[in-house]
Amino acid sequence: MTKITLSQIQRAAKMIQQQAHVTPVFSSVTLNELGGNEVYCKGEHLQKVGAFKFRGAYHAVSQLTPSQLEKGLITVSSGNHAQALALAGKLHHAKVHIVMPDTASNVKRKAVLSYGAMIHDCGNLQSEREEALSEIQKETGSVCVHPYDHPDVIAGQGTVCLEFLDQVSKLDVLVAPVGGGGLLSGLAVAGKSLSPSLKIYGAEPLGADDAARSFASGKRLPQLDPRTMADGLQTGLGELNWEIIKNKVDGIWTVSEREIFDTTLFVWERMKQVVEPSAAVALAAVMSEPFRNRYQGKRVGVVFSGGNVSPDFFQLHKQS
Amino acid sequence: MTKITLSQIQRAAKMIQQQAHVTPVFSSVTLNELGGNEVYCKGEHLQKVGAFKFRGAYHAVSQLTPSQLEKGLITVSSGNHAQALALAGKLHHAKVHIVMPDTASNVKRKAVLSYGAMIHDCGNLQSEREEALSEIQKETGSVCVHPYDHPDVIAGQGTVCLEFLDQVSKLDVLVAPVGGGGLLSGLAVAGKSLSPSLKIYGAEPLGADDAARSFASGKRLPQLDPRTMADGLQTGLGELNWEIIKNKVDGIWTVSEREIFDTTLFVWERMKQVVEPSAAVALAAVMSEPFRNRYQGKRVGVVFSGGNVSPDFFQLHKQS
Repeated sequence: MTKITLSQIQRAAKMIQQQAHVTPVFSSVTLNELGGNEVYCKGEHLQKVGAFKFRGAYHAVSQLTPSQLEKGLITVSSGNHAQALALAGKLHHAKVHIVMPDTASNVKRKAVLSYGAMIHDCGNLQSEREEALSEIQKETGSVCVHPYDHPDVIAGQGTVCLEFLDQVSKLDVLVAPVGGGGLLSGLAVAGKSLSPSLKIYGAEPLGADDAARSFASGKRLPQLDPRTMADGLQTGLGELNWEIIKNKVDGIWTVSEREIFDTTLFVWERMKQVVEPSAAVALAAVMSEPFRNRYQGKRVGVVFSGGNVSPDFFQLHKQS
Repeated sequence: MTKITLSQIQRAAKMIQQQAHVTPVFSSVTLNELGGNEVYCKGEHLQKVGAFKFRGAYHAVSQLTPSQLEKGLITVSSGNHAQALALAGKLHHAKVHIVMPDTASNVKRKAVLSYGAMIHDCGNLQSEREEALSEIQKETGSVCVHPYDHPDVIAGQGTVCLEFLDQVSKLDVLVAPVGGGGLLSGLAVAGKSLSPSLKIYGAEPLGADDAARSFASGKRLPQLDPRTMADGLQTGLGELNWEIIKNKVDGIWTVSEREIFDTTLFVWERMKQVVEPSAAVALAAVMSEPFRNRYQGKRVGVVFSGGNVSPDFFQLHKQS
């Protein structure tokens, strides 16, 4: 099994520093008063392409040889990784192929196209995606950059933690959303190496809780029939990611759809930040009563993982 | 006529520094590429109560004597000044009366109530508001803190400019939304004193263009039948404000409803910030073609004046 180390993440940070933003950290008096703790939110929704995914994609692409870049890059994604790879490829003058389910929204297509990538439609089934991917890869010889199950991607995402610990001293707890696990595994390697006493948690929707179930059972379980408005967290844990998470992460918190919606709205109304529901999941966990009770008076870091959400989100998901 | 000076604004800055936030400045690569200039946006939507209004209200209240505070404070407002005065009063342990048209939204009422102020309903006509105000003032002896036509309020709003010029060096142009003119007149005093070559403009909706008309005619004209989604800019210029604006401001830009909507959406989608349409007006002016042509390659400062907007804004104002 590939091992990711702190020094790889530190090298990744140097590699991406010319292109990635150092994102700001937000806090809120209201939030701290509500929870009785000090919460710091790392604003990766202000990263390039509006999500932390740019770090991993850019780092992975920067590790390729000129002849690999020449052949082009490919991935399957309808989400933030698609945009991230499209931009990372553009910055390396490489052709980028994005295999995208034909159900993906026009907004996402337009964003990918605006970075000059090519979109290849496929059906929405896992098998259809894989088939489309392997077909185009065979035709073009392009290099696949996996959204999360990839050491260079994990090292890139881990740079979030280096920056965060540099910006906020003496964090007691760090919570990040977990989908495929790229972000959480990268944070876990960096965080536990730099500060062994730091508690590190994942957070995910109850309706897509494969990480929590995997954690409870001690083995990687698949994501079955995910149902959540947090569209970035519907994927199952990657293999490499799981190996790291099971060894280094302290647990997984789950939150309801109601909590996700309410937290996304709280961040809009009180913090005036646009975060996508997947990004609100970690803060939702931190705002839940069990978390508050456990970490009263502590310094808590949360990652706002992205901000790519449609302006009609609140209308679409409004609940009575 | 009362004269506002730079040193008053500098004293105001000292007075409010324990309570007001130093708000961050945002920039956007996309924005700069679109306009061919460098745009810096001062994030007063992250100020307490979500708007610059807290500065002026807090400063004005801090100037009152204990016996004035004892009698309580009063104002007419359904907008950000209502929240600002409610919080400023609370922090000074003074009772606050807010006269509010009965058409004001529940969200705004709740915000004011959450700071412990009392709401007095009135009709929506100017005469009805004034009548309600004078009646409650007579009953209670409370001190009226006007939203903009008030020297201490203007001095408080001017502190935005001190901070901004401190955060961003060598600004060539500064643009702020203008409603009653509290912000613009405060900026103008501070900006022209510190940097006489700095161009200072107001920006307002075409549908509420009393400042532009006043500027063109050289005398203060009333706001007649304002029609705009920028609900914070429907008031007419104050007397004190106009005296400053006509002498110190370089001009007023006007923008269409379409430009306001599109800019509010741009700030949401690309900058991931929640700003209210009134706050987007200055950036809308800066993004317009005439402005771009005139200030190519220049360093432009814009004030995001507030972020109090309903989550269904985009749905409500969606245009075909």
